[in-house]
Amino acid sequence: MSQPQLDDEREWPITKRLAQRIAAFDANDLTPRALAAARMAIIDTIGVTLAGSAEPCVQILLDTPGIADAPGKCTVLGTNVRTSALDAALLNGTASHALDYDDFSQPMGGHQSVPLVAPLLALAEERKLSGNALIAAYVIGIETEIRLARAVNFHHYDKGWHPTATLGIFGTVAAASHLLKLDSERIAMALAIAASLAAGLKANFGTMVKPLHVGHIGRSGLFAVLIAERGFTANTAAIEHRQGFFNAFNGPGHYDAQRIFENWGVPPEIESETLGLKQFPCCGSTHPAIAMALALVHEEHVNPEQIESIHIQAHRRRLPHTDNPDPRTPLGAKFSVQYAVARALVDGVVRLEHFEGDAHLDPRVRRLLAITRTDPHPDMPEDAEHQFGAEVTLTLRDGRVRSRRIDNLIGRGLANPMSTDELWEKFYDCSKRAIGSSEALALYERLEALEEVSDISTLARLFAKRVLPGGNVAQQKLEVSAAPERKSEETAWVP
Amino acid sequence: MSQPQLDDEREWPITKRLAQRIAAFDANDLTPRALAAARMAIIDTIGVTLAGSAEPCVQILLDTPGIADAPGKCTVLGTNVRTSALDAALLNGTASHALDYDDFSQPMGGHQSVPLVAPLLALAEERKLSGNALIAAYVIGIETEIRLARAVNFHHYDKGWHPTATLGIFGTVAAASHLLKLDSERIAMALAIAASLAAGLKANFGTMVKPLHVGHIGRSGLFAVLIAERGFTANTAAIEHRQGFFNAFNGPGHYDAQRIFENWGVPPEIESETLGLKQFPCCGSTHPAIAMALALVHEEHVNPEQIESIHIQAHRRRLPHTDNPDPRTPLGAKFSVQYAVARALVDGVVRLEHFEGDAHLDPRVRRLLAITRTDPHPDMPEDAEHQFGAEVTLTLRDGRVRSRRIDNLIGRGLANPMSTDELWEKFYDCSKRAIGSSEALALYERLEALEEVSDISTLARLFAKRVLPGGNVAQQKLEVSAAPERKSEETAWVP
Repeated sequence: MSQPQLDDEREWPITKRLAQRIAAFDANDLTPRALAAARMAIIDTIGVTLAGSAEPCVQILLDTPGIADAPGKCTVLGTNVRTSALDAALLNGTASHALDYDDFSQPMGGHQSVPLVAPLLALAEERKLSGNALIAAYVIGIETEIRLARAVNFHHYDKGWHPTATLGIFGTVAAASHLLKLDSERIAMALAIAASLAAGLKANFGTMVKPLHVGHIGRSGLFAVLIAERGFTANTAAIEHRQGFFNAFNGPGHYDAQRIFENWGVPPEIESETLGLKQFPCCGSTHPAIAMALALVHEEHVNPEQIESIHIQAHRRRLPHTDNPDPRTPLGAKFSVQYAVARALVDGVVRLEHFEGDAHLDPRVRRLLAITRTDPHPDMPEDAEHQFGAEVTLTLRDGRVRSRRIDNLIGRGLANPMSTDELWEKFYDCSKRAIGSSEALALYERLEALEEVSDISTLARLFAKRVLPGGNVAQQKLEVSAAPERKSEETAWVP
Repeated sequence: MSQPQLDDEREWPITKRLAQRIAAFDANDLTPRALAAARMAIIDTIGVTLAGSAEPCVQILLDTPGIADAPGKCTVLGTNVRTSALDAALLNGTASHALDYDDFSQPMGGHQSVPLVAPLLALAEERKLSGNALIAAYVIGIETEIRLARAVNFHHYDKGWHPTATLGIFGTVAAASHLLKLDSERIAMALAIAASLAAGLKANFGTMVKPLHVGHIGRSGLFAVLIAERGFTANTAAIEHRQGFFNAFNGPGHYDAQRIFENWGVPPEIESETLGLKQFPCCGSTHPAIAMALALVHEEHVNPEQIESIHIQAHRRRLPHTDNPDPRTPLGAKFSVQYAVARALVDGVVRLEHFEGDAHLDPRVRRLLAITRTDPHPDMPEDAEHQFGAEVTLTLRDGRVRSRRIDNLIGRGLANPMSTDELWEKFYDCSKRAIGSSEALALYERLEALEEVSDISTLARLFAKRVLPGGNVAQQKLEVSAAPERKSEETAWVP
């Protein structure tokens, strides 16, 4: 829907108009495509949250006095702690981004699901709300934060703000407000409060503070909603005010507020092909090459022992930070396209455990690293329209040459979805270590039918670390590396 | 101490250098003048916190699930709630700014004590620390936040940031880190974390969010310190980084980082005459005229019945927002210089209760409003160096004319301090309603010797709402309007 051009900024009721759209959004408006995309993203986010729950950034928070000490009904995923919705949002939000393994949005310049899922799960668990309500709230959260991103990016991103946090907080507010069925006036108050709590600097990328941004703004956004629900007042023009969000964060002339409402919901942002899921737990620039290596393993049935030499050719923008033939640490391995390809060829999968401990020293992988050559692809120019291309060529001992090439692996969203097996594989890898193998399967089965869950709190048992009858926490066998086969084969993720 | 000029911003270790200064600050460096100023400000802040504790913004927070639900040793002032240091910082910080009656700093463009006192009291209460340690931590907090302000203001202020929050958070970190004796590396981490949590927009001035900014950043700053203490990592160049605090909040070219360290501590900011205490609970622009009216009452012994006419002449910049001869609400009364002067003449004091309920309809005041004339002062030009001047002239029924004039009442800091009686009068007015009259006196007596308090938690009984032996909260007689006389007459606030 196009908007009239207004001359005087005081006549733009941006915050209130946004609040009205949020309040008016109806779960019945969800298309099957939107529902499938939302469910896929929520499952994926829960998986990476479970995987992240053991990370030091989360453990330090749990160890801090006053954090997760409040009694409450909300599970800190992958632990046996239950606490307030606010602190569950903080901890689960931080965990969800701890491995940088969560989904991403190109126009947002950040990660769209993590500001939403932790606060929504906490609220839904506390108030026994349904999966369907959660999905609807998630979808309006996505719409709100990405629409705001269209108004402020990429000036916003380039200035040093972390959009996952500074824009994500408005997604949190939209989602949580919708789940609580606040009226548009209260939603406008919550958005305005959130404008004053928005924060997060890219200077802290590469440190524990990056995932903390997510937990912090998820908690703050939920806090804004809870106090607005109780009558807290704010300036309901705080986003567009002369000294409000747009002008303070971007500056006059560096945003276009009209873009929020242009063609609102047509199509919904959740259906956009600019959203993607991260299939592998390492730098996104290595993913096209990994995908090609896996194709060679699974389609050509290459045995790593047969390989005489490997040639990786990637788009030249993918290489400066991933051309590392000799990774010395787990983090180095995450940024080594050679390691990632070798690992795919050796194991036929690329998993979290491959970037932990001494995995990067595995002699089977080291043999392949020694016979790998890496170059920019001559057919993929720097200014090409698509920049996520790679070709992997294997020369085998018997003289055969096999290769696979992709010109643009634009993420595993609706345009190029992960298969059900791939999603399950990732979810299992992420969740088994936190909650146990059989619970991982049970949880996945419940989440696959999320819209039929009438009370999210019934999932709590599966979110938590498993405690054996004797009171001991189960020691899960992390060496179990193959995901159990699932009976249902062809869930239609994408209609 | 002057700093070398550095060409390359990457060579400015601003965050680390600041951390080193904070760690190196020694309580023994406090001059008697600094000690007196700090004690005066801390007492005043505790008073206004007690007064603000009953405000709706605080009560809504207390009513929000997950807020102040964590068990802990820290008193929410003016209540019987004890909770974590984090939530005490949130609630007491919000209360401290709820009435906008707290002290202010001209270079900060904001309020310097409220980001510090609530987190420091909470920590000191929890860990049984001394008044002397608290004072030293407070002084380094003041230095840090105002030094940062000198680097970024007033561009920072004019853009729409609320410096009390966006700069105050660094004061919180400095103060709390010092109180916990963190080493400079941990302090640098905490400052860097805080850079990512800094937030607060002036768009929300005039709403409950303004005081919330203070509570929120006090909590966030303390949180940054507590997690840094436990090993949380951040980029220790986050303030000066290309995508860090200065560049994101101010923008390149709009700050001067060198000003932080120029003449650091010589003299300490706490001794600056640019700090002021707010003597009366109404708009600061009315204060010069109030002071002159009180001088007429106390020095000329004018009885309001004798007055035939009143002429207020104020600097013209004080009038556009305070020239209100007929206030219709308590808030209107706060912004009516006529009301404030009439109230001073009728009661010889100006108190919180004069801006509550129907006080603005008091017939004794209304008689004076009807005979008051208000003009810009002809001798006080718009571009005068000093802009807080006023003259009040009374014509009495017997024909006598009496007047008092001041050309610059620049706040009641070290240059023009409140007397001990005036401080006690304000403290009593603020605290009696929250904790009871006799407790107010007892608390004041303890705070007057704050540097001798070996364990702040011994004050907790006096911070809390009084509970009578039967379990009922005492109903304090709010009509008791005269502060009890105190035996000690001449405490030397300012040496």
